[in-house]
Amino acid sequence: MSATPTTYSFGMIGLGTMGRNLLLNLADHDFAVAGYDKDASKLTLLAEEGAGLPVRGFAELTDFVQSLQTPRSIMLLVPAGKIVDSVIEELRPLLAPGDIIIDGGNSHFTDTDRRAAALEAAGLHFFGMGISGGEEGARFGPSMMPGGDQQAYEVMKPMFEAIAAQVGGEPCVTYIGPGAAGHFVKMVHNGIEYGLMQLIAETYGVLKQGLGLDNDAIGRVFTQWNAGRLQSFLLDITKDIFAFRAPDTDHLLLDDIRDEARSKGTGKWTSQVAMDLEVPLSTIDTAVALRNLSKYKALREKLATQYGPEAQALAADKEDFLTQLEEAFYFSMVITYAQGMHLLSKASAEYGYKLQLAGIARIWRGGCIIRSGFLSDIYNAYQQAPELEHLLLDEGVAKLVQQAVPGARTVVAGAITAGLAVPAYAASLSYFDSFRTARLPSNLIQAQRDYFGAHTYELIGKEGLFHTQWTPEHEDAANKQDTHVGEENKQERPVQPNQ
Amino acid sequence: MSATPTTYSFGMIGLGTMGRNLLLNLADHDFAVAGYDKDASKLTLLAEEGAGLPVRGFAELTDFVQSLQTPRSIMLLVPAGKIVDSVIEELRPLLAPGDIIIDGGNSHFTDTDRRAAALEAAGLHFFGMGISGGEEGARFGPSMMPGGDQQAYEVMKPMFEAIAAQVGGEPCVTYIGPGAAGHFVKMVHNGIEYGLMQLIAETYGVLKQGLGLDNDAIGRVFTQWNAGRLQSFLLDITKDIFAFRAPDTDHLLLDDIRDEARSKGTGKWTSQVAMDLEVPLSTIDTAVALRNLSKYKALREKLATQYGPEAQALAADKEDFLTQLEEAFYFSMVITYAQGMHLLSKASAEYGYKLQLAGIARIWRGGCIIRSGFLSDIYNAYQQAPELEHLLLDEGVAKLVQQAVPGARTVVAGAITAGLAVPAYAASLSYFDSFRTARLPSNLIQAQRDYFGAHTYELIGKEGLFHTQWTPEHEDAANKQDTHVGEENKQERPVQPNQ
Repeated sequence: MSATPTTYSFGMIGLGTMGRNLLLNLADHDFAVAGYDKDASKLTLLAEEGAGLPVRGFAELTDFVQSLQTPRSIMLLVPAGKIVDSVIEELRPLLAPGDIIIDGGNSHFTDTDRRAAALEAAGLHFFGMGISGGEEGARFGPSMMPGGDQQAYEVMKPMFEAIAAQVGGEPCVTYIGPGAAGHFVKMVHNGIEYGLMQLIAETYGVLKQGLGLDNDAIGRVFTQWNAGRLQSFLLDITKDIFAFRAPDTDHLLLDDIRDEARSKGTGKWTSQVAMDLEVPLSTIDTAVALRNLSKYKALREKLATQYGPEAQALAADKEDFLTQLEEAFYFSMVITYAQGMHLLSKASAEYGYKLQLAGIARIWRGGCIIRSGFLSDIYNAYQQAPELEHLLLDEGVAKLVQQAVPGARTVVAGAITAGLAVPAYAASLSYFDSFRTARLPSNLIQAQRDYFGAHTYELIGKEGLFHTQWTPEHEDAANKQDTHVGEENKQERPVQPNQ
Repeated sequence: MSATPTTYSFGMIGLGTMGRNLLLNLADHDFAVAGYDKDASKLTLLAEEGAGLPVRGFAELTDFVQSLQTPRSIMLLVPAGKIVDSVIEELRPLLAPGDIIIDGGNSHFTDTDRRAAALEAAGLHFFGMGISGGEEGARFGPSMMPGGDQQAYEVMKPMFEAIAAQVGGEPCVTYIGPGAAGHFVKMVHNGIEYGLMQLIAETYGVLKQGLGLDNDAIGRVFTQWNAGRLQSFLLDITKDIFAFRAPDTDHLLLDDIRDEARSKGTGKWTSQVAMDLEVPLSTIDTAVALRNLSKYKALREKLATQYGPEAQALAADKEDFLTQLEEAFYFSMVITYAQGMHLLSKASAEYGYKLQLAGIARIWRGGCIIRSGFLSDIYNAYQQAPELEHLLLDEGVAKLVQQAVPGARTVVAGAITAGLAVPAYAASLSYFDSFRTARLPSNLIQAQRDYFGAHTYELIGKEGLFHTQWTPEHEDAANKQDTHVGEENKQERPVQPNQ
């Protein structure tokens, strides 16, 4: 181990690849840092990889804590769930008021709220910090989303800004907001990630099954897209995947991989919370559903036999269709980001996060999994109008969407006709067409709810809630119709007697 | 008040319309019953409407409880949430071991589990019972889904079987399962209801905007559908709604109703739980999202201006298109029920409910909101194969679906081309086309996850989890590829170091 000062400016608990890499990243930037892990092999790895850097590993928690400058900044990178609570319990008696614990994992934001409240009572600061970029990002520049006490953030700010990915001279980290704002924003980041990944997978399906392209040709399409306005980290790694052969073979490793997608929960949480906040999130919901659907492999095989033949080739000129497909992808990508941003803006109002959506778009431009050229357009939109209610209202974005939507219609209609599944593409278009409808047929749903459940309805141009006795046998009893029941009440209400 | 015996066989707490009607229904069938409500006006109504029937209202909880035969059967029909807990608290000290409390409201099934466990410790039985059919159903024959202790159910069985809706001589009530099984099944019933209602609303949109039909013509389509294989309660009331004029006017009340749909949460819960149980539920998810989307009226109006013109007329022969639309609706209706049944079968395994899906289909054939002719097909399918993994595997259903799917493709592709939103129709078709795909493109998602997050993947024909160093710069290091990481582990795991 190299020159180690007696006190360290940052401590890491959990020296798995993520924790170790983040610590080494800090040490690279001349911060003297300490790590703690019960697993001796992790300490050995830290010592090896940190040779020559101001980093030291500890096998004893007390020694580790005492080696840190106060107020202490201690990050946990341990599996989300109960382990976070047990580490906090162990740590708590060793800390002093003003010390900061940072949970760098993917904890559910409600857990973060609970932990923050409990630690605040002891005078400790608790940060939920989303970190995106994977192992590579942690080592050489992640995108970071810290949420917690704004003043306490100042202690860590110089460190985080130094190690974050940099785009145009700006670090991909910013103070997100109070409470669990950081973890909430990271969760939504992951929801967008689910949507984009599903869209890329469907594109692969269309290219392969619909157009009959071989892997090399598919790889060329992704390479070409990634060189244009669709440039993104996810397309970038996709093009790599289409160049990666299985060891000692002539075929792609991709072809050997099972088509059952796994997930760790953040996409699901995004959809579930969006439903609680009454934000439609159709593309992301669909991506979550499709991960789940993919898991029923045996059932899919049975249904394929029962409902064959599978999708037919697309009845389309290949070159022309590829142009439309690029537009369809662009369109659906915009919709996916727009859904995520809409959820952030609603959550910000609901939870008092005071999110700066421009700042969030800015720090997503580099380091994270959903980084893309389009994030600059999002950044510009919210720079110009920080209170923008929906990304689709931005004039610049609207121009791009208007140009891309015909391609999306052609692709989705073509795929549906051919029996080829494009669920996230279709959901994106449905979302768009529904949102651009001034008068939806949802008045019928209100009439039905009032008919069978006396749930009341609202009238155009008239305040209040109304109930009608709809059954035809009572149709003559005019005084039973259109009863004014009372003021709007969104809570569950007992059904009132009507008449 | 008429002849009241000194002891009553059933008690109701909460004499709103639902509670009062259910009590009157019991009294109609010669059960002597008691009701309790703090609100004196509810007692007056009960006395008025129950004149000549063996029913008595109480203003004092203790008197009410003491008037009941033991073991007591006491149902709560109070608003779901904290009120249920507070009523139970009030009631508990007045009860004796063996007594039964039945929550007849739409409580979340996890609340029911919690309450059952707490009361079981005191020797009391707690039932979560879903009741569907609205006020009319409660009065003259609902569909009921009781879950709890099977032996305790015997006490209530004669009463519930007497008052339930009857179909083909069979009552629309059956013991559902232990714990919160009854409330779970009712929740899924409501999820299916959300899906069907959204499909009907979209149909209305297609008929009005896409085909340019006026309300009378639309009403005729629904009437015609309801007279055929699509016969259902929801279409039945829809046809009534299309005949119901606003008081003292020439136009439909429907046209005056705002297009912002409300919801009370059961559809949302269904989608959220399905995500937890990893069951894809795309049509129902979409219905939930669209209720939420409809609420953003002002935003929709802005987006309509920005992205106009709205949907164009469908380029189709009207008569022919109507035939296809009927097929599309039939197809999507089947998919919606199939999703709900799939969720029930997964939940049954996960929570140990031991659900009899045939029995559930049987009791849904009458009394409830989702009753329809097609429920007989579902009933038959699960009668023949109680362990059927998915409704689409049933041969009878498969035949119907195969015939209807071309119509669904024509309608969805046509609507999408015209810019007309048919989100639930599209989601149903996407679900079907995805599930009948033996090899999905989801292998790409696994490759991506492993690339950026070292989340590992599985290989075809080879057990275990594998990780690859995908980045091109390491492509020469063959020993870093295809690393066997370990056995399948669905829990959140710390990211393992990969050398």
